[in-house]
Amino acid sequence: MRAVEFTGDVVFRDDYADPRPARGEVVVEVIRAGVCRTDLEIVRGYMNFRGVLGHEFVGRVAAGPARWRGKRVVAEINCVCGRCGMCRSGLRNHCRERTVLGIHGRDGVFADKVAVPIGNLHEVPDGLSDDEAVMVEPLAAAFQLVRQVRFERGQKVVVLGDGTLGQLIARVVHRICPSLVLVGKHSEKLELAEKVHIQTAEVGDFVPRQDADVVVDATGAASGLALACRAVRPRGTIVLKSTYAGGEPVDLSSLVINEVTLIGSRCGPFADALNALARHEVDVTNLVSRHMSVENAIEALELAARSDVVKVILDMACGR
Amino acid sequence: MRAVEFTGDVVFRDDYADPRPARGEVVVEVIRAGVCRTDLEIVRGYMNFRGVLGHEFVGRVAAGPARWRGKRVVAEINCVCGRCGMCRSGLRNHCRERTVLGIHGRDGVFADKVAVPIGNLHEVPDGLSDDEAVMVEPLAAAFQLVRQVRFERGQKVVVLGDGTLGQLIARVVHRICPSLVLVGKHSEKLELAEKVHIQTAEVGDFVPRQDADVVVDATGAASGLALACRAVRPRGTIVLKSTYAGGEPVDLSSLVINEVTLIGSRCGPFADALNALARHEVDVTNLVSRHMSVENAIEALELAARSDVVKVILDMACGR
Repeated sequence: MRAVEFTGDVVFRDDYADPRPARGEVVVEVIRAGVCRTDLEIVRGYMNFRGVLGHEFVGRVAAGPARWRGKRVVAEINCVCGRCGMCRSGLRNHCRERTVLGIHGRDGVFADKVAVPIGNLHEVPDGLSDDEAVMVEPLAAAFQLVRQVRFERGQKVVVLGDGTLGQLIARVVHRICPSLVLVGKHSEKLELAEKVHIQTAEVGDFVPRQDADVVVDATGAASGLALACRAVRPRGTIVLKSTYAGGEPVDLSSLVINEVTLIGSRCGPFADALNALARHEVDVTNLVSRHMSVENAIEALELAARSDVVKVILDMACGR
Repeated sequence: MRAVEFTGDVVFRDDYADPRPARGEVVVEVIRAGVCRTDLEIVRGYMNFRGVLGHEFVGRVAAGPARWRGKRVVAEINCVCGRCGMCRSGLRNHCRERTVLGIHGRDGVFADKVAVPIGNLHEVPDGLSDDEAVMVEPLAAAFQLVRQVRFERGQKVVVLGDGTLGQLIARVVHRICPSLVLVGKHSEKLELAEKVHIQTAEVGDFVPRQDADVVVDATGAASGLALACRAVRPRGTIVLKSTYAGGEPVDLSSLVINEVTLIGSRCGPFADALNALARHEVDVTNLVSRHMSVENAIEALELAARSDVVKVILDMACGR
C-alpha cells in the first residue's frame, strides 16, 4: 500500500506492507488525513518516532466485526493496555503501556490503511463532511480544556497561536467567554477567526498586562509560554497545549511570584467534538487550506509548515 | 543604625539612616533575622533590588500606636495599597503596587530597625522562642501549599530540596501524608528531617517513576523542576516553590503529555504558622544552624550558601 514513512527522513512508499490487525483491532481504509504540527515536530526529532506518520483522519472500516464493517469512523489515537494503574483509574489516555498512532510505537494514518483498536473507534454521523471528521481529533483536544478549566462568562481569556489548535480552542471557548481574544502572527489566519466573530490581535499589537484570567498557549514555541507568563493575572491559569522539541529557557519565576496555575493539556473527548460538529456549534470548515494527494506528502508537510497555512489534508482517494 | 545594604555589593554600615515610618506604619526594633535563599538570589541579581536586605525576622515595636508598642511581633512581607483590583478581590499578597520587605522597593530587616505597615503585624505568643518566631515567614510559605493543594492521606508526596523551605514543607505536609519523602543532596540536612520522623532519600538514590501524586520543587534550581517532571504521575501536581535568577532550559513537553498541573506558590498565612508553632504541631528548632552578629553579615550570607547549612540567624542584640 501507499504510506508516508519517517525513517529519519520522510519517505513516500507505494510498497509498504498492509497493516496486520492484532486481536481486538480493525483495519480502517483512510479517506482523508490531516497534517498536524506534531507531525512536523516528529520530523524534527520529537518523540524519536519511526514508522508511518499521521494521526488525524477519517476512514472506513475495511475489515473487522460486522458491527463496524463499512462504517465511516474516526479513532482516538492512544492505544491502551486496559490493565495498568492508569487504565484502571480511568485515565486511559495516560496508559503506561500505550502506543500512539503515528507518534509512539505504532504506524499512523498517512497510508491507505491503518490498524486501530475497536475501542478507539467513533462512528461519524452522516451529516458531517470528511473534512469536518478529520478535524475531530484536534477539536477533541480543544474540548479537553473545557474539562480541565472552569471557564465562566465574563472571564478574560487569551489564546496564543493562530494555528489549527489555537483556532479550534478559540472556537470552543469563545462560546462560553465571548470576550476571548486570539493572538497570532499571521493576519490571514486571524481573519479566519474573525469570520466566526472571534476577536483577534496581532502579536505585535498585543500588550500583555498580567490581567487575563486564563491564557492558553497553543503557539508550539517556548516564546508562547513566556508571553503567557506576562499576560496572565496573579492566581490566574495558563493552559499549556503545545509540545515542541527543545526550545529556549523560560523564566518561570513569575509563575511562583504570581502563584499561577499551569495546566498541561493533551488529547480530549472525541464524543464532545463529534456532538459539537453535528449540532453546528463549532465551525471548522474554513480552516482547511488545501487538499493534496499522499504521493505529495513531503510537499504537504512543507506546505503545512508555512506561516500562512492552517490545515493541509491528504486526500487518500486521489490516485487510489 | 547598623544595616546590611545591597548596592550591587553587600555592604555593612553602622551609619544607615533610621527608618521613617509612613502613615499607618510602625518602627520595629529587630531582635533576630533569618538569612533566606532569596537573599542569596538577590545578591546574584534577582529582582534587581537595592537597599537593606532581609525579610525574615522577629522584633519589638519601638514606636507606634499604644496597641502595638512594646509587643513582640513578626510581620508579613508584602506591603500593599489596599485599593488595586488585586487588593479589592482579596489577593492582597498580589497587590499591583506592593513593595516587599528587603526584596522589592522597601528596606528589609537586616538592620537595627525597620518600618512596617501596622496591617502586616502579628503578635508572637509568649510561648514561642525568638528562633521559632524568625521561622514564621518561611513556615507560612510552607502552609500556603496546604491552601493551594488538597492533600489527602495515602497520597504519594515527594518534596525536592533539603533547605529551609523544603524542610518546612515536609514538616507541614507530613502531618497529612505520612509516607512523604524528602529528597535532598546533603545527608546532614536529611538527618534533621529524619529526627522528626520524615522519610528521606539522597537525590542519587532517588529513582523518579512518574508515580507521585504531588511533587514539590523547593530546590531553588531549574534541575529541581526537571526532576519533578520525571517524578510526578500523569494528571499529578507539581508545586513550584522556588524562585531563581536565570537557569537551564527545562523541557516542559512532559507537562503537556502527562497533563500535569503546575502550581506556583509564594507567601503564606502567618496565622496558620503561628498557630502550628504555638500548638507544637510543627518542630522547626533543629533547622537553626548558627547565630551570627549583624556585623558579620557578609560571612553569614556566605555561610548560608554552604551546602551543609540550613538556617543562619542574625542576632541583632549582639553588639547593640
